[in-house]
Amino acid sequence: MQSLQEKASEWSGVNPNDAFAIDEINLYQKLGLQTFINLSTNFYNRVYDDEEEWFRSIFANSKKEDAIQNQYEFFVQRMGGPPLYSQRRGHPALIARHRPFPVTRQAAERWLHHMQKALDSTTDIDSDSKVKMTNFFRHTAFFLVAGDELKNQKQSIACKHATSKPAAV
Amino acid sequence: MQSLQEKASEWSGVNPNDAFAIDEINLYQKLGLQTFINLSTNFYNRVYDDEEEWFRSIFANSKKEDAIQNQYEFFVQRMGGPPLYSQRRGHPALIARHRPFPVTRQAAERWLHHMQKALDSTTDIDSDSKVKMTNFFRHTAFFLVAGDELKNQKQSIACKHATSKPAAV
Repeated sequence: MQSLQEKASEWSGVNPNDAFAIDEINLYQKLGLQTFINLSTNFYNRVYDDEEEWFRSIFANSKKEDAIQNQYEFFVQRMGGPPLYSQRRGHPALIARHRPFPVTRQAAERWLHHMQKALDSTTDIDSDSKVKMTNFFRHTAFFLVAGDELKNQKQSIACKHATSKPAAV
Repeated sequence: MQSLQEKASEWSGVNPNDAFAIDEINLYQKLGLQTFINLSTNFYNRVYDDEEEWFRSIFANSKKEDAIQNQYEFFVQRMGGPPLYSQRRGHPALIARHRPFPVTRQAAERWLHHMQKALDSTTDIDSDSKVKMTNFFRHTAFFLVAGDELKNQKQSIACKHATSKPAAV
């Protein structure tokens, strides 16, 4: 059975070394807190205004300012800065925290589309940092698609109402 | 509804500031890789020999050497060292990776009992580091107990075989 990492690499086209090249330098020290706040603000401004209703609606139950803070605090923590996210919310637990959302391949690509635009429109992100972050985001997005499949696995294996014969799906 | 962080704090008795005091210093630089390897080896030697069969059996399908490597690589990465875990396995995704296991309060306490013994029997861990790690482990263990409850939530909400009237449990 393929691991989460193997699925993420295959589906994203990004190998783990490239995905975690963000750790080769301290991006937080290089870019600074304000750049991460700007990036997440640019990203969610696009998402909450998305013309694609199916994608925009995924975020309908979250406040934009909360989404922005959750995201930049995680990025800051993961990319060499202080553990802002964990102090406020605990471990990132990325897959579990995405459980309420339908993290399909299509949603991953739409997320990445907006993030690429946000990276391009945020000043003070040099091209090397942009490449590293793009690879990290792409690998992570498909890691979460792989994680999303666990929900279905659990459902079909453990559902106590199921008959012994699995239903056709 | 209580957040994962709130549940972890209440059930563990450890507040987030104490739990994430591991980030006040670089424990990896202070203790070194070998100390983390020794700690995880001491821990799993105890777990795989546990006289409590119910706890030992949780690990029955995992090889001891894999369990040791997964654990120390995560600790090294989380406590200031190189991202050994993510390069090999991807994001820690702590809650999702504990899905196969019954992470009850009783299991958390048993895990912590063995970890305390392992910390005490591993040389070169000074008392300040031990306090920081103990708080981190205790908070994290109950964070995972809180995460474990999500499994039941999902099952009762989303099971497609359920009738409209919930079964008594």
